Amino acid sequence: MDIHFETIGIIRSCFKEKFGIPRQAGLVPAATATLELLPPYNQAEAFTGLEGFSHLWLLFLFHGNDRQSWKATVRPPRLGGNTRLGVFATRSPFRPNPIGLSAVELERIEQQSGKIILHLKGVDLLDGTPIIDIKPYLPYADAIATAKGGFAAEAPKGHLTVNFLPEPEQTCLTLEQGDYPDLRQLIVETLRNDPRPAYYQQRPQKNSFGMKLFDFDLRWEQDGDSITVTELHRSDR
Amino acid sequence: MDIHFETIGIIRSCFKEKFGIPRQAGLVPAATATLELLPPYNQAEAFTGLEGFSHLWLLFLFHGNDRQSWKATVRPPRLGGNTRLGVFATRSPFRPNPIGLSAVELERIEQQSGKIILHLKGVDLLDGTPIIDIKPYLPYADAIATAKGGFAAEAPKGHLTVNFLPEPEQTCLTLEQGDYPDLRQLIVETLRNDPRPAYYQQRPQKNSFGMKLFDFDLRWEQDGDSITVTELHRSDR
Repeated sequence: MDIHFETIGIIRSCFKEKFGIPRQAGLVPAATATLELLPPYNQAEAFTGLEGFSHLWLLFLFHGNDRQSWKATVRPPRLGGNTRLGVFATRSPFRPNPIGLSAVELERIEQQSGKIILHLKGVDLLDGTPIIDIKPYLPYADAIATAKGGFAAEAPKGHLTVNFLPEPEQTCLTLEQGDYPDLRQLIVETLRNDPRPAYYQQRPQKNSFGMKLFDFDLRWEQDGDSITVTELHRSDR
Repeated sequence: MDIHFETIGIIRSCFKEKFGIPRQAGLVPAATATLELLPPYNQAEAFTGLEGFSHLWLLFLFHGNDRQSWKATVRPPRLGGNTRLGVFATRSPFRPNPIGLSAVELERIEQQSGKIILHLKGVDLLDGTPIIDIKPYLPYADAIATAKGGFAAEAPKGHLTVNFLPEPEQTCLTLEQGDYPDLRQLIVETLRNDPRPAYYQQRPQKNSFGMKLFDFDLRWEQDGDSITVTELHRSDR
């Protein structure tokens, strides 16, 4: 079945590579993003009434995946990467139809000179993600208080402590005076959820990691449950 | 952007036509359906772990829509059909990319002779709906207790009273002894939500309605908030 889908908008996010992206929406509240609608979807009237909703569903394409095939089972990081579960029992991005689903907070809707830009919070989306649908979050239908969540019944603990060396701490403070007011909070929320691939938990010899955040290179070291941010500087890539 | 999507399974549901389908999942708990997986997705291991989840997300195609185009605004039945809202502020099936999203209850997973069949409850799905993805419902990410629901903050009232004339009542009792154990409950839950298109609420002269349910023709009359089921018999269509 070949279906013609239109990309209705593109995500601009602080997450510039897959490593470090929160594993579900809402886990990193400080992760903000914008969604700019593409023509012909950049019409104010197509969004009339959306401002009354605090959250919305984004349907998107997992566009950063090189792997084209799917496998019947995957190894969720939540289970330490050792246990195989069915792909349909997980939110793995490697699935028969690479569509993602995220409930994100809608902060505000910006209209300017023919542009419609949604300002979002709590995203788990790679920069450049193509959006194929936006739906309002309907609490009476979507917030199922009695639902049982299998192997992922609770949120990940987010239990790591995050400290900064003096130099990246100072850089962070400086950047917060400018265009990145919640940068420290974003770094702490991102790292405390342990972004390492599950198989690193069996590799105690490797303890230094890096990711891109906005256009900065962030590096940290991990020792047990303790993380130290060692570097934060503008990327030269 | 042309993307190749695979239909991974097909819904078999009591709802054989669009009229009468609940307007969201969960509004008619007695609305059961099965989802039979198509090859190569009919592998037991692709569902390992799903049995621990009480609910799942179905992503599906709105296949029964004749209209190919989308409009920037729609008139939600919830607002009486008089008010235009942006298409992205609604769950209207007429949208740029005709993908639907439903959180349904997973009753059980049946495996028999190479088949995988998911038994579902609370569906709002037309018979024959093509499914393109199944994801577990993750309470910690998806059940947002604080979400605000705009013009659809509360569930529809489901306030109509539903009575049966003696003949369809008897037919119902007989059918409940056979293959349709919860038929009366299904009829009551479906009709009390007022399945009429919004514009009928301004047409008091028309008060007789019909829909197909399984392979039965169901007819009822509506007088204000009171519904009387007048006919229930096997369809000869």
